[in-house]
Amino acid sequence: MAKTIRIGFLGFGTVGTGAFRMLQDNRDAIVKKIGLSFEVAKIGIKDTSKERGVDPSLFTTDLDSIVNDPTIDVVIEVIGGVDPAARLVEAALKHGKHVVTANKELIAKHGSRLVHLAKSKGLDLHYEAAVGGGIPLIQPLKHQLAGNDLVRMMGILNGTTNYILTMMEEEEADYSDALREAQEKGYAEADPTNDVEGIDTGYKISILASIAGGKQVAVNEVYREGISKVSATDIAYAASWGYRIKLLGIAEMIGEAVRVRVHPTMIPLTHPLASVNGVYNALWIHGDFVGDVMFSGRGAGSDPTGSAVIGDFLDVGRNIFAGGSGSAIPYDEGMKTAPMDDLETTYYLRIQVEDKPRTLGEISMVFGRHEISIAEMQMRTLPSEKGEIVCLTHKAKESAVQAALAEVQWLPCVSKVATTIRVETA
Amino acid sequence: MAKTIRIGFLGFGTVGTGAFRMLQDNRDAIVKKIGLSFEVAKIGIKDTSKERGVDPSLFTTDLDSIVNDPTIDVVIEVIGGVDPAARLVEAALKHGKHVVTANKELIAKHGSRLVHLAKSKGLDLHYEAAVGGGIPLIQPLKHQLAGNDLVRMMGILNGTTNYILTMMEEEEADYSDALREAQEKGYAEADPTNDVEGIDTGYKISILASIAGGKQVAVNEVYREGISKVSATDIAYAASWGYRIKLLGIAEMIGEAVRVRVHPTMIPLTHPLASVNGVYNALWIHGDFVGDVMFSGRGAGSDPTGSAVIGDFLDVGRNIFAGGSGSAIPYDEGMKTAPMDDLETTYYLRIQVEDKPRTLGEISMVFGRHEISIAEMQMRTLPSEKGEIVCLTHKAKESAVQAALAEVQWLPCVSKVATTIRVETA
Repeated sequence: MAKTIRIGFLGFGTVGTGAFRMLQDNRDAIVKKIGLSFEVAKIGIKDTSKERGVDPSLFTTDLDSIVNDPTIDVVIEVIGGVDPAARLVEAALKHGKHVVTANKELIAKHGSRLVHLAKSKGLDLHYEAAVGGGIPLIQPLKHQLAGNDLVRMMGILNGTTNYILTMMEEEEADYSDALREAQEKGYAEADPTNDVEGIDTGYKISILASIAGGKQVAVNEVYREGISKVSATDIAYAASWGYRIKLLGIAEMIGEAVRVRVHPTMIPLTHPLASVNGVYNALWIHGDFVGDVMFSGRGAGSDPTGSAVIGDFLDVGRNIFAGGSGSAIPYDEGMKTAPMDDLETTYYLRIQVEDKPRTLGEISMVFGRHEISIAEMQMRTLPSEKGEIVCLTHKAKESAVQAALAEVQWLPCVSKVATTIRVETA
Repeated sequence: MAKTIRIGFLGFGTVGTGAFRMLQDNRDAIVKKIGLSFEVAKIGIKDTSKERGVDPSLFTTDLDSIVNDPTIDVVIEVIGGVDPAARLVEAALKHGKHVVTANKELIAKHGSRLVHLAKSKGLDLHYEAAVGGGIPLIQPLKHQLAGNDLVRMMGILNGTTNYILTMMEEEEADYSDALREAQEKGYAEADPTNDVEGIDTGYKISILASIAGGKQVAVNEVYREGISKVSATDIAYAASWGYRIKLLGIAEMIGEAVRVRVHPTMIPLTHPLASVNGVYNALWIHGDFVGDVMFSGRGAGSDPTGSAVIGDFLDVGRNIFAGGSGSAIPYDEGMKTAPMDDLETTYYLRIQVEDKPRTLGEISMVFGRHEISIAEMQMRTLPSEKGEIVCLTHKAKESAVQAALAEVQWLPCVSKVATTIRVETA
């Protein structure tokens, strides 16, 4: 066995420790599969005072010393975020190192540039762990499903929000209580913005859309709504009509463009995504030849995400052994995105109103003027002369619905438009 | 664009026409992804008189002329079966052609030898379409999940039997009626043996087990039972206890060995595989780091299976363009298999009896002597002084259950042991 692959870790948090442990626990099998031995040479961290149960001589706070080290072959980047990860990954590639990263923000924003850089140097850059934790998604899209026109993808790509929504349904809990429970169990961070506002899901669906469309989707062109406005009431209404509410990342090809959006979505209970609950993630794909395919599993956590990192490392290692490095499939920037305004779908609307005779008529008139027709409706009286109108529309255009709601909220009989949730059936 | 990849098809049935159509319909996207143009040069078939809507000059009945043709780069083998596919694939490799095959029997029986041959020649041999139709399974196991010890896999790998079992449940139909319906709809063949007796599932789970275990499982060491003994009665009893009956291929690692089995299996309605109905297929995997992962989709049919074939062809084409051919991961023969006798699980038993006072006692005594204890039991009286005892055991050893049933069926109070179905909960 001629060569020993030397690995440098950038970062050593949840994902890094999972990947490291997998390298230790399954070492013999991994060496056998690669055909080469390996060793972790350095681990770059911020704080060396923390006890981590790993040989302390491996740790350094000088992350540049890892990406500049001529003896290191593979860099595993698990810091997250763009700064300093982008600079370090770029430096690693420029110094001839293969890179495995779990960094969705980095790939969503700089994937095209970095993959091109890797390819130009004959190096591998893999990022399976960036989307869906341990679930194989990126590579199956790039390879086994690559002959398809991937017409449509819908994914539950964030375990935190899926856990919160599941708790809200199962325990009839409010959003804030479910969030607190998720924080107590370690499924949500102290500042949950990134998860609950759909930012995390936005990065992930834009990566998937970039692969499906063959060009990088600009992250700021992803439409995004979080789950903080979803209430237990909405979940109960959804259930009464046979739906469940999930935070979905959705990408749909529209000619040469792709529409990418993240928002709470009502899906029928019979849809395979509807039974993906708790911290589980899933991606449902419709391709023109393959039809419907779904992948599900643990989308986060130390061990599952570590599994994806090490799966990538195995490919890097095999290429070092057998040749074939640098075969990553690059994509350019500049994917066209379709505007949200042109979306046509059905809508769930919950409107709080004064409990007066002409209320329903006035609201209906506004909808009618905007060519929105109502498929299902429920009304109920709330305490203190208030009422609530809840309806499902027939297919309508996003721009029309938004225009109608802008008018409706100024009607004297309307207290507020409490919730608008888009409905997707396939 | 220097080179045009020349493709030869061996066979042009359901899968072949799907793959061919995908090459036509998505031609521009495929050329762009590979970086090279391609053309179908020859199609080898048995009967040239059939109208196929394809340029007739492409067809030949001389299949050897394809594998010997020095101008052909890639052979797509979709004949199925071992003879003449094995000889032709071997000849194609010996003549320096990359091979994509959808042939489960070929890979289950000769995969190790053929992959080694391909590798020794620096050629690609891919077979994603052999298992699970369009669902990416083989390559995710070999790559993204490869760092895991794949402790356990359970798959619904045959659409015909899943369709029949779904019909039996939904329409409370008997096996023979559901089979006839499947035949009328084209989901089952005139001679359904290969599907309903679990032979097809056996090939597929043995391929998956070979990849997971790193050595080829001998097909004749796969334990196999079909669905022809499952009745609507069993399906109803299963439902009454919260279970559904599926034909599963199961592979479980036991130390250095793997136990591979195919049989009707009762799984809880809450198990993700339980909601995979009709012609859909799915594979559920438990890995030591990734946890539970599931893949589902259309496991058969022209377009989905064609999608998998073309996904493989894209990888072959990219390797021709960029280098990296021959990077298939070979495995040797000789995987150790764990004996079925040592299996420990719970069992569903349905026993037809004489409706007499001592019946239950006598049967219970036999079970007790074999250390089998009963968890749940239902009894009912059938017409003409017959009765039926249906029970779920606690965990018991396969050998003990078989020994007890051999005794039970000779008891004077027992007419017959109607059904034995193993139960799996995860």
